[in-house]
Amino acid sequence: MLTLIYLLAISAEAMTGALAAGRRNMDIFGVSVIAFLTALGGGTVRDILLGRYPIAWTQHPEYVALVIASGIAAVLISRHMKRLNRLFMFLDALGLIAFTIIGCDVALAMNYHPLIVLLSGMITGIAGGILRDMLCNRVPIVFLRELYASVSMLVGLLYIGLFTLKIDHDLNVAACFALGLLLRLTALKRGWRLPAFNYRHDMH
Amino acid sequence: MLTLIYLLAISAEAMTGALAAGRRNMDIFGVSVIAFLTALGGGTVRDILLGRYPIAWTQHPEYVALVIASGIAAVLISRHMKRLNRLFMFLDALGLIAFTIIGCDVALAMNYHPLIVLLSGMITGIAGGILRDMLCNRVPIVFLRELYASVSMLVGLLYIGLFTLKIDHDLNVAACFALGLLLRLTALKRGWRLPAFNYRHDMH
Amino acid sequence: MLTLIYLLAISAEAMTGALAAGRRNMDIFGVSVIAFLTALGGGTVRDILLGRYPIAWTQHPEYVALVIASGIAAVLISRHMKRLNRLFMFLDALGLIAFTIIGCDVALAMNYHPLIVLLSGMITGIAGGILRDMLCNRVPIVFLRELYASVSMLVGLLYIGLFTLKIDHDLNVAACFALGLLLRLTALKRGWRLPAFNYRHDMH
Repeated sequence: MLTLIYLLAISAEAMTGALAAGRRNMDIFGVSVIAFLTALGGGTVRDILLGRYPIAWTQHPEYVALVIASGIAAVLISRHMKRLNRLFMFLDALGLIAFTIIGCDVALAMNYHPLIVLLSGMITGIAGGILRDMLCNRVPIVFLRELYASVSMLVGLLYIGLFTLKIDHDLNVAACFALGLLLRLTALKRGWRLPAFNYRHDMH
Repeated sequence: MLTLIYLLAISAEAMTGALAAGRRNMDIFGVSVIAFLTALGGGTVRDILLGRYPIAWTQHPEYVALVIASGIAAVLISRHMKRLNRLFMFLDALGLIAFTIIGCDVALAMNYHPLIVLLSGMITGIAGGILRDMLCNRVPIVFLRELYASVSMLVGLLYIGLFTLKIDHDLNVAACFALGLLLRLTALKRGWRLPAFNYRHDMH
Repeated sequence: MLTLIYLLAISAEAMTGALAAGRRNMDIFGVSVIAFLTALGGGTVRDILLGRYPIAWTQHPEYVALVIASGIAAVLISRHMKRLNRLFMFLDALGLIAFTIIGCDVALAMNYHPLIVLLSGMITGIAGGILRDMLCNRVPIVFLRELYASVSMLVGLLYIGLFTLKIDHDLNVAACFALGLLLRLTALKRGWRLPAFNYRHDMH
């Protein structure tokens, strides 16, 4: 079930990356690279930071093929994507939660400290989007936008908490999806965001 | 022979990186870092992703010295570089092909899946240029420009194909250089590029 | 002693990162990420390049908590930071030197070639600031500014030199701080910088 959601999620993330690349007038190759990094970049950064080799996608070439195909498909049908906006927001939220849980699981299995487990979940959840934005030459949207990283953090905290309490795993995962979807979709609807700073003194 | 081409190629790549840095008004240190990353960044990213330690250049400090010296030399004689434009384009094409072949070889020796071998070749070929452009704060040129990544991909496919068919290695390498130079130099001459996308709907 | 300076330094670096993020109108999460990368990013890049696992901060979650708390504190009291400008410049210089020495030590312990040891020191000293600037979507300040990387290089050279001569370690560290502070603070005062290049011919 988590694997199915994961596959859906990496496809959806690849599509958002591809559309961002398409907006920058990139060619089909640029679109593929950005699709790949958006979908699989978070897990890659996590594996490198935790020293978990071989890196996940190097053992699953079918994931690589899936995200590149999804990215190219997205730009080919981009004129129809506007109508799918809501579906995408939903898939993106599912993906954020699935990535966070998977990232926590990886670090838990390697016996890292709970704070590092939480970071592992958040990195898996959001680093792909950060890489996408760096390559598209813009300040990462996740640092500016409505609750996104915060959702990843709260889901991670809940997951680690229930895991420590030895709650049944399926129940734990279900609770994480319920909390995450509720928070993310409400944040999107209401335009919630964290307080931003606007510090002007040019010290550096 | 491949080693000689490799040394020529990292010097040439270091020079293109240094000139890009010089255009950004960077100091001699910035020029050295960008020269280093342009020339050795692709192999570094590959080694990290494949978990191949120690990373190549940490065992070859002479490569590090060579690329930094090449980069500094390039900005010192930059007024003469315009005349060398064609020579550079040729060395850059040689480098792209040599890097691709070396990247494939590394992944083949570690028994990765053919798709990962291809990615390894392409990453070695083009990631250095992507890092250069990210540090120079511009959208990577490889995502916008004439056939470049495509040449790396086709050379990689040919190399892996002939390797699988157990064709003589020297013959294989010669065929890769013939195909790669033909494609790249023709693409440059004719201004070939992949179809670009220009997707305007601001979904994100 | 070096540990104490290290803790002071990562806090100070986290604060400079947080203020740069605050100036970009980032939210509290963006501020935390940039604070983290500025303070611990250099050591992380070094550990990944040298293949030194587990990465330092994954074994010291308290460092992670310290840098995030420092970053958030900095933006909360940002109106008072102007008065602390000189203190910050001093802490930043201390940090640069401490990071460089620690980076050299790590590579020395792994028996790398002296040139790689020097690079390890410099990467630890300056890569955090480079990551900060890439995420803030600007050309890294270290490539443009007054002597900064050069100070790291000279301190590294002195440290490796005295180490090779088997000079007493405390004396070596003291000499490095004396040289580094003298150079950095004088460079700041006098506005020293390396010669910059401004190469206009658009070859690439």
